[in-house]
Amino acid sequence: MLRDSGFGDELDHSVVNLICPFHERLLCMCVIAQLQQLLDADGLLLATDDLARYTQEPRHRYQGRPLAVARPSNTGQLAEVVRWCRGQGIAMVAQGGHTGLVGGAAVPEDQSQLIVSMERMRRIRSLDVADASLVAEAGCTLTAVQQAALDHGLFYPVSLASEGTATIGGTIATNAGGNLTIRHGNTRRQVLGLEVVLADGRIYQDLSPLRKDNSGYDLKQWIIGSEGTLGIITAATLALQPVARQSVTAMVAVANLEDGLALLTQLRAGLGETLSACEFMPRLAMDFVLDHLPQARDPFERTHPWYVTVQADTCVAGDWLEPAILAIFSRALDGGLVHDAVIADSQARADALWALREAISPAQQTGGVSLKHDIAVPVSCIPEFVNRATAELEQAVAGIRPCIFGHLGDGNLHFNLSQPEAMPAEKFRACEPLCNRIIFDLVRQYQGSIAAEHGIGQLRRDELATGQPLKVELMKQIKTALDPHNLLNPGKVVS
Amino acid sequence: MLRDSGFGDELDHSVVNLICPFHERLLCMCVIAQLQQLLDADGLLLATDDLARYTQEPRHRYQGRPLAVARPSNTGQLAEVVRWCRGQGIAMVAQGGHTGLVGGAAVPEDQSQLIVSMERMRRIRSLDVADASLVAEAGCTLTAVQQAALDHGLFYPVSLASEGTATIGGTIATNAGGNLTIRHGNTRRQVLGLEVVLADGRIYQDLSPLRKDNSGYDLKQWIIGSEGTLGIITAATLALQPVARQSVTAMVAVANLEDGLALLTQLRAGLGETLSACEFMPRLAMDFVLDHLPQARDPFERTHPWYVTVQADTCVAGDWLEPAILAIFSRALDGGLVHDAVIADSQARADALWALREAISPAQQTGGVSLKHDIAVPVSCIPEFVNRATAELEQAVAGIRPCIFGHLGDGNLHFNLSQPEAMPAEKFRACEPLCNRIIFDLVRQYQGSIAAEHGIGQLRRDELATGQPLKVELMKQIKTALDPHNLLNPGKVVS
Repeated sequence: MLRDSGFGDELDHSVVNLICPFHERLLCMCVIAQLQQLLDADGLLLATDDLARYTQEPRHRYQGRPLAVARPSNTGQLAEVVRWCRGQGIAMVAQGGHTGLVGGAAVPEDQSQLIVSMERMRRIRSLDVADASLVAEAGCTLTAVQQAALDHGLFYPVSLASEGTATIGGTIATNAGGNLTIRHGNTRRQVLGLEVVLADGRIYQDLSPLRKDNSGYDLKQWIIGSEGTLGIITAATLALQPVARQSVTAMVAVANLEDGLALLTQLRAGLGETLSACEFMPRLAMDFVLDHLPQARDPFERTHPWYVTVQADTCVAGDWLEPAILAIFSRALDGGLVHDAVIADSQARADALWALREAISPAQQTGGVSLKHDIAVPVSCIPEFVNRATAELEQAVAGIRPCIFGHLGDGNLHFNLSQPEAMPAEKFRACEPLCNRIIFDLVRQYQGSIAAEHGIGQLRRDELATGQPLKVELMKQIKTALDPHNLLNPGKVVS
Repeated sequence: MLRDSGFGDELDHSVVNLICPFHERLLCMCVIAQLQQLLDADGLLLATDDLARYTQEPRHRYQGRPLAVARPSNTGQLAEVVRWCRGQGIAMVAQGGHTGLVGGAAVPEDQSQLIVSMERMRRIRSLDVADASLVAEAGCTLTAVQQAALDHGLFYPVSLASEGTATIGGTIATNAGGNLTIRHGNTRRQVLGLEVVLADGRIYQDLSPLRKDNSGYDLKQWIIGSEGTLGIITAATLALQPVARQSVTAMVAVANLEDGLALLTQLRAGLGETLSACEFMPRLAMDFVLDHLPQARDPFERTHPWYVTVQADTCVAGDWLEPAILAIFSRALDGGLVHDAVIADSQARADALWALREAISPAQQTGGVSLKHDIAVPVSCIPEFVNRATAELEQAVAGIRPCIFGHLGDGNLHFNLSQPEAMPAEKFRACEPLCNRIIFDLVRQYQGSIAAEHGIGQLRRDELATGQPLKVELMKQIKTALDPHNLLNPGKVVS
């Protein structure tokens, strides 16, 4: 039965033609009408214009066209949609802020899959100061969760460039990292509880803010980082931290990554639990950012090969943190480990130092095509790995400009390769398989990860299957056990 | 073929009779000879005297008799044993230090199961200061790992009463907690990598010390806390922390748990990341300990209803930590939240304060039979939960003496009930089902856990199945997927 919201006239006819090649229009309308009945008036989008924003993704790698976009407003509604999809054999792709970079939330062109957007489920259900936790629905943005915590004198320690758009559900499904992981870990560490709609439409709810619970297998650990392939996250209980009372942001200049690593070891020993971030970037990245951001300025008078951004925070009141960092820098300057150092003397200066780091990705566009790799190696191997990979790449592609930056403290390298200045874009793009091979083979040699924080999605699925066959075989066993009809984000992570 | 180590004469005849009821002795000997061939001379124990220490467990709840005890000296040997067991359809029970309290490493009486002791695999394979991690074999004791870290100026932050005996493999298989979890989390948080022998005898090895890795499902998360039912852990890569440069241990006296909780909130806000432990105990526990430990003395002149043990540590050098704690205590004393407070002025005094807390379990024996429950509730609910549970129990069993102590900071309560002074032991033991029902029903009401840190094992398996049927159904799906012949620790956690 058609409902008032009347999809009939608004229904894009091309949808009908595509999914009903034999013009079984009535049948198709009937199917969609059933879905419409499960949702409220704003709950289903069908018009081409409405669908566009759910299929455009940041790096324009994946085009696609969904059957429709379902926008449930609560967990019960989503559970009904999942049950209905299961009955129809229709696959579902859950979407948060759609900021993913590996095609994890993209759909194929054939309109066979339903996008399930969590954007209408964005309530903070509760917050408890004594438990130092909150319960957020999956569609809450990271910024909204950070703000809710701050409103109660607490802090949610996951911070990403896309935090204004990225959602809690998406960051849990991809176990998002960010800049503060050396202190606070990835998203996995923040999750105390989850509410999940399973592949058969049942709701698994375990939202208690318990800090210790060894009552059987920890099911939420299977869902975290599974990129929507084992269940659809609808809400989460997140651990919160006290807010900082002293914070120091600094940038130092070093000659090479060996010195950067030696500095990191000294920072860890001297700052211990207060060390929040330790990031690195090469001069090429600084050049790109200074070109790209009109207000950016180089913190140093001379140019240097590498820069390290350091942040330390403590919740203990006092004025001992900056002297502690100064003492480490002072020794490092005396010993020649560090060539120059600046400490931000205001929040504005701290923000300006962070802006240099945060702007690298967009700024790299000024350097033409960039072949991007989100990898990790053991921290102790970073210098050797970067040196070897750079040498091999320079030999393979003359004039290639490695712009390798990222998280020195946790070994996560954004191993991006900018187009040689003398090479046409298309020719450089054609080098991608060659560059991937060099990088991923070396990653394997160093027991690294081909997907440190962005996940596998579609982009790295086949590389994972080739490189880690036993792991992928075990993953398939789990996938088959929990989603036997392969209806949750099929083709992502595991084929 | 029999080998030189010759089990023939040493073989306990009762074994043969039990497993070969029709006196098929040669067949049985042949089976054991095959197993012997897979292991070296010290690798297989069969004599009754040798087996005893693998079947005695701390609370004497579970008796049993294994087919034999296999003691592999390396991962390859274990993998062969597992493959052989699979071929024979023989179930395996992995054992670490055998300090578990829920029958998780016990075998049945029928000699049908093989105990696999990891005690000969106790090498620290490597330690890297730049990576702040080490690789330990499963049979290393917790103390050995702590010491290896200390030898390199680093710290392994899992600490338990049984740390001299408990092994790394066991603590990972049970996701062990302890006293420092409010700062460092449970064992799960320390594990960067695992090496595991799967149910089919294949070795899954992922020992890289990566801090960020989102390349597919995080398989180690499934193994951690699965109590030996999904794979046998042979080695682990563990994250290490810098050592502390300032440490403060204190004990305060409070009138009730509401005040204890209010103090915790103030400690968290004021000490932030430096707050390492916040434990509580009632006067009854203090009485038991003062009776039990000859050298123990009450830190306070007057008696008080409740005591809170606080530890804070920082890796930052200086002398600001003790004043920070003093400031919080001073406000709390002025406001009446705290009735008295002592700060340890030496490591010996700090150890003495901790001894009062650590000795509660053994000291409770001076109070007769103790019915023990290892539960958790949300931190915010602790006072209400304890008050309600205590009232219901006192109504159900006249004179019952609740001795509830544990981890105020993380909600993990050791909800132990001492025998009424006027009631015979046997009569009180018969009250266990009634007391369990009262406690577990209330735990459920407060969204708590019936097994906060000791795990499920056999002791809480049926209670878990009753209370969380959907969870257990999903657990069974995973168990079936990864151990289809149910040969890894069958009957534990899930039936």
